[in-house]
Amino acid sequence: MRRYSPLFLASILLLNSCGVSQPAETTETTQTPVAKATDVKALDPEIEALLAKMSVEEKVGQMTQVTVDLILKDNSLTEIDPAKLRTALIDKKVGSILNVKGNAYTIDEWHKLLTGIQDVATKETRLGIPVIYGIDAIHGANYIAGSTLFPHNIGMSATRNPELVHKAAMITAAETRASGIPWNFDPVLDVGRQPLWPRFEETFGEDVYLVKTMGTAAIEGYEQDNLNTDHTVASTMKHFLGYSVPASGKDRTPSYIPEQMLREIFLPPFKAAVDAGASSVMINSGEVNGVPVHGSKYYLTEILRDELGFEGVAVSDWEDVIRLHTRHRIADSPKEAVKMAVEAGLDMSMVPTDYSFYDLLVELVKEGEISEERINTSVRRILTLKKKLGILDQPYPVASLKDQVQKPEYDAVAYQAALESLTLLKNEKQVLPLRKNAKVLIAGPAANTLGALHGSWSYVWQGTDESQYPEKAKTVAEALVAEIGKNNVINRSVADFDAAVNYDAAQLKKDAKQADAIILFLGEKAYAESPGVIDDLNLDPKQVALAKAAKETGKPVVLVLLEGRPRIVSAVEPLVDAVVMAYRPSTFGAPALADVLFGDANPSGALSFTYPRYAGDVVHYDYKGTERIREDVPNTYGDAGFNPQWTFGTGLSYTNFAFSDLKVNATDFGPNDKLQVSVKVKNTGKRAGQKAVELYSHDQYASITPSAKRLRAFTKVSLEPGEEKVVNFTVSPEDMAFVNQQGQWVTEPGAFDLMVGDLKTTVNYVQ
Amino acid sequence: MRRYSPLFLASILLLNSCGVSQPAETTETTQTPVAKATDVKALDPEIEALLAKMSVEEKVGQMTQVTVDLILKDNSLTEIDPAKLRTALIDKKVGSILNVKGNAYTIDEWHKLLTGIQDVATKETRLGIPVIYGIDAIHGANYIAGSTLFPHNIGMSATRNPELVHKAAMITAAETRASGIPWNFDPVLDVGRQPLWPRFEETFGEDVYLVKTMGTAAIEGYEQDNLNTDHTVASTMKHFLGYSVPASGKDRTPSYIPEQMLREIFLPPFKAAVDAGASSVMINSGEVNGVPVHGSKYYLTEILRDELGFEGVAVSDWEDVIRLHTRHRIADSPKEAVKMAVEAGLDMSMVPTDYSFYDLLVELVKEGEISEERINTSVRRILTLKKKLGILDQPYPVASLKDQVQKPEYDAVAYQAALESLTLLKNEKQVLPLRKNAKVLIAGPAANTLGALHGSWSYVWQGTDESQYPEKAKTVAEALVAEIGKNNVINRSVADFDAAVNYDAAQLKKDAKQADAIILFLGEKAYAESPGVIDDLNLDPKQVALAKAAKETGKPVVLVLLEGRPRIVSAVEPLVDAVVMAYRPSTFGAPALADVLFGDANPSGALSFTYPRYAGDVVHYDYKGTERIREDVPNTYGDAGFNPQWTFGTGLSYTNFAFSDLKVNATDFGPNDKLQVSVKVKNTGKRAGQKAVELYSHDQYASITPSAKRLRAFTKVSLEPGEEKVVNFTVSPEDMAFVNQQGQWVTEPGAFDLMVGDLKTTVNYVQ
Repeated sequence: MRRYSPLFLASILLLNSCGVSQPAETTETTQTPVAKATDVKALDPEIEALLAKMSVEEKVGQMTQVTVDLILKDNSLTEIDPAKLRTALIDKKVGSILNVKGNAYTIDEWHKLLTGIQDVATKETRLGIPVIYGIDAIHGANYIAGSTLFPHNIGMSATRNPELVHKAAMITAAETRASGIPWNFDPVLDVGRQPLWPRFEETFGEDVYLVKTMGTAAIEGYEQDNLNTDHTVASTMKHFLGYSVPASGKDRTPSYIPEQMLREIFLPPFKAAVDAGASSVMINSGEVNGVPVHGSKYYLTEILRDELGFEGVAVSDWEDVIRLHTRHRIADSPKEAVKMAVEAGLDMSMVPTDYSFYDLLVELVKEGEISEERINTSVRRILTLKKKLGILDQPYPVASLKDQVQKPEYDAVAYQAALESLTLLKNEKQVLPLRKNAKVLIAGPAANTLGALHGSWSYVWQGTDESQYPEKAKTVAEALVAEIGKNNVINRSVADFDAAVNYDAAQLKKDAKQADAIILFLGEKAYAESPGVIDDLNLDPKQVALAKAAKETGKPVVLVLLEGRPRIVSAVEPLVDAVVMAYRPSTFGAPALADVLFGDANPSGALSFTYPRYAGDVVHYDYKGTERIREDVPNTYGDAGFNPQWTFGTGLSYTNFAFSDLKVNATDFGPNDKLQVSVKVKNTGKRAGQKAVELYSHDQYASITPSAKRLRAFTKVSLEPGEEKVVNFTVSPEDMAFVNQQGQWVTEPGAFDLMVGDLKTTVNYVQ
Repeated sequence: MRRYSPLFLASILLLNSCGVSQPAETTETTQTPVAKATDVKALDPEIEALLAKMSVEEKVGQMTQVTVDLILKDNSLTEIDPAKLRTALIDKKVGSILNVKGNAYTIDEWHKLLTGIQDVATKETRLGIPVIYGIDAIHGANYIAGSTLFPHNIGMSATRNPELVHKAAMITAAETRASGIPWNFDPVLDVGRQPLWPRFEETFGEDVYLVKTMGTAAIEGYEQDNLNTDHTVASTMKHFLGYSVPASGKDRTPSYIPEQMLREIFLPPFKAAVDAGASSVMINSGEVNGVPVHGSKYYLTEILRDELGFEGVAVSDWEDVIRLHTRHRIADSPKEAVKMAVEAGLDMSMVPTDYSFYDLLVELVKEGEISEERINTSVRRILTLKKKLGILDQPYPVASLKDQVQKPEYDAVAYQAALESLTLLKNEKQVLPLRKNAKVLIAGPAANTLGALHGSWSYVWQGTDESQYPEKAKTVAEALVAEIGKNNVINRSVADFDAAVNYDAAQLKKDAKQADAIILFLGEKAYAESPGVIDDLNLDPKQVALAKAAKETGKPVVLVLLEGRPRIVSAVEPLVDAVVMAYRPSTFGAPALADVLFGDANPSGALSFTYPRYAGDVVHYDYKGTERIREDVPNTYGDAGFNPQWTFGTGLSYTNFAFSDLKVNATDFGPNDKLQVSVKVKNTGKRAGQKAVELYSHDQYASITPSAKRLRAFTKVSLEPGEEKVVNFTVSPEDMAFVNQQGQWVTEPGAFDLMVGDLKTTVNYVQ
């Protein structure tokens, strides 16, 4: 397991996050047999004593989670309706609440709300068990008004800097806990392999190792191996399992994933997260191969508990239990749906807009349809989590922790993360960086909106309410004015994505006459989950038209992409001289972009996914056809081989790096050996820069078709001009394992290529 | 099993293929345990005696198939090189040859070639075993120069008339056998669920039952339960298994198919085909879930032999064995590749351009790496096939059978099939049929090329050589002139797809001034296999531009689609008044189109696939999200529900049909019951017409998410104006079975909806 230095919040900014990371020990331990959850474990006497006092209703109440709307006054976003709250906590004995109503709450609103809830829970219920409140703090404390937001995960992983992910999680944890909330529904561990999917931006990308590494960095940042502190929260692995590749790309629709792929690509991040100590898990709303996961004993018990050894709390996603009846139709009544989910292994139902789950589960237990022992297991897990978080003893928000939110030093981390995420994909004739005395025309729908910079889960669910953003968040237009002065910025882009896209081509050409260069900000407006559904990956033709108009001016054109997923730009890319992929860089994305565009900073991001060239040619960097499929394919309709717009790992710099001396400490290695791999990286250019150094392996022959290559370790180095460093990696045989036809992880004897940059060496595994 | 009346070629045209078919007995028998291939079967003494005489080399030679190029003179398309032929048959003891070199051969060329081959095989080899020659006669005898071609399967299945498939197969068999070839590599049983795939046109579409029904009709037409006749051939089920859904749409690239889906969707047509007596099988070139099928014992022995009980010959596809080494990399040498394929269960390798398979397999047997008993099993199957075909006794082409090709009555079947395939998808204000005295402008790249009408496997592999088409094949432009006279046809379209698409919009508008209507022929030029690879399902923008120009004229616009797969027309469809889907109707497609467009015939085709509205929204009619996913999806980016351009089964008519009185003989039924379903269909319009009547079922609740609906039976009725008929269907519980999580076929107790047209009734299955 990757370990982080014991960090304290006050010191996080002192860390050199840009230096050479520790040798990348791999976290792959999936070959090791794990203990069954049924192994005898010592029971906690305090929990058992509490459990013994509880009625069936009180137990079922603990398993019930409702949305905050259910306890608020109809006409208020934050004010508790005492009668509704008592219905929830006293009549229905609810143990958990989540969410905001409307938009983000201030820290004072959170304290008032949580205090009101815990007052009733602890003083007016029979056993006084506090409520556990949960929140979706996805990229920073996005439901605390005014808090700084970090880039979405798709950008965080482009930094190739797990320390930044770790720091962002620590900050989010501190702010969340300070608001009185001890439970965060994050991180997303779904591997992003379906670019149509509207939650693609929430993923760490298409690579298993990268998702594992970044995902565990987040979990360790949230939990810091001790939930009972004033700055940590319980994390939530989500969404278990197979959520991220719906066949049609639509959110919460069926996935079809062969078991081998499920185990090799989608399961390992959850295994690594369990090993990293994640306290809870949220279940995939969708179905995998016709099996709704939240109704499946195979997924929720056999894999999650028995194989992975997970002992924490499993909570459903929004309204999913009833959907076993209404949508998936594997339960012929709402009651059967509840029975099925509980029998499958669910601990808590995010019901969340009524008490149906509570009512039906009470009935089922009383009728003997579900045993009390079964619900004891879940309640034990929930109470254990509450105890670990310390809320059984002290459930109230702490006034002094209000200082723990919105510290200025958090902003520096957010800026650094945004900066390191920015990914330079094209830079012909070194058009970038632009001169600061250049006059630029900025255009495109993303140039002057905060939504496009932030994406989903930004003060409101959809991220689309420009009025909710804090003063410190600047649009790109504002940041560029700050960077080069308002006289050097020509801008007609308005703070409305849909309106700004209608910028007239003739007007653009006219405006461009006075400009030395054009910067086009294209991409997507903010969206979250289902409302972000699209039917075609191709970029909106109006945006393509803007690029054509820009090209026709004859001026240098720089394209900046602000988008949550790779919209097809093959018609645009040839028209522009430079491309910067900015993802959803959030609060300090605009100044980071300004610094990169005008040379105050050197970009170092690397794509975490393969950017498709065509909408009908979505492949990943480890594509099994790579370099092998082209041979018999005439070019009648184009090349059928691996032909993306930009492949995973692409990321240019304003300087140049050269790799040399790729060495391994052995040519043969055995099951107990660790390979020491070293490579020299030199900055051969004229300015300082950072470089992601990635070690890939390729199994030359295997019992199933081997991947073209697979990422096995990475780090990021910072080099002055002329400076050279040696990067060391350690890899074990199990790091190069794959899942065979029998569903087992194996490393098969034979030759493995190891690759860094343009270098390759071959080692031989001997069993 | 569906049985056909004993037909003789001379009488096939007397059959009324348009009347009510027999009640659709289902062919689903997958729940029945099948005999293991290892059960003791009586050995054929003649085969055993021959086998006993054979050397290892002679046995391995029987397992070797090479392409005809290898035995022809370098500078000739048809003339045997005696030295090369002797190398093949005497030195390498080759038992099978396939293919043409270049383009289709005349019947005389075939006779000469086959005679030359069999002369050496029977007179100059030690045991005189004749060669079995194989050919890809995919939609008619497409490699006999001048033979009539039938619509590709995607159109044949749109006829909803299995008798036409059966007749076309009989004709193809008679012509193929007459040429001296006893083995046809057809039918394609792959279920078409990936519209990007360039072989989509060769499939019978997206529905399992339709593919099963049409596939077995073809097999029974080819084989007629007796291979030893002068008008039957051995059929080949292809491509076993999972070929048709490559993840990226590229031909011969990896598929990822969960086992449950593999068994429920892709396996049943092969099961039905084995039960129908198919003599051989061709193996999928690609890999499924990382497992190359031609190297997999699981697929080739456990499923194909042990589960399905198949006893015929399994041949690889083109050059696939070596690719276990060169592409799939599961074999670390060419020799290991041979070993792997043979051990998996392959009987014959379509090597086909060298003798590597022969050389390596001889070595492997001599070294004891592969047992002689193992190769005896394959050789026994191959010799048995040769014996069944009668070629052990009489291997030569028969001169008198030359009369059996290109009979005029075949043309009538081809015309009828083309006509019944034509699918009317839109007809606003009854713009169709057009008046015969109307003056029409015809435009679009498919208006004057034979390639777009015929598609793949048409006299040449790619179907693109306009000079190879026989005189009787007419372009649409020619057929329309014949239909309404040259004075009524304005046409600038040339016999070159790529050139014709550049028809200038201004010129189109000018030409349209004299026209009463515009008919646009859009779609795809011919392609086959890998050269037909595309990267985007969207229709070429130049074709969209033609539609825009046509719309701007204000004249009525009729769109005719000539294409092998559904290219996205959502930008075109609103611009036109009528749409006719014509697929690849082949030799008599143009006159059939003329007859439909001008009202000499009434269209009756029904889509065999769901035509997607958007490139990023490919779904099938049985989509598990149908009618259930929309509830929580705001329309921000469009509707995430089932929203195709046209769904499976769509097909309009020039008359109207009304359904009534849907009745079932029982409300409850048990395992041994058969449900008798009846429905009345009435022609309520003013002209005679045919209507596909389809029975669907929907399992209300099941242990895995039930399909939205599934086709269980269909027939086609012919009705005069005002006429009403009663259609009867018989369905058994196993017809409504699905594959559960354990991989077993089950019909679970509970309610099933039965649906015909807009009618629905519900029955209850009680076990």
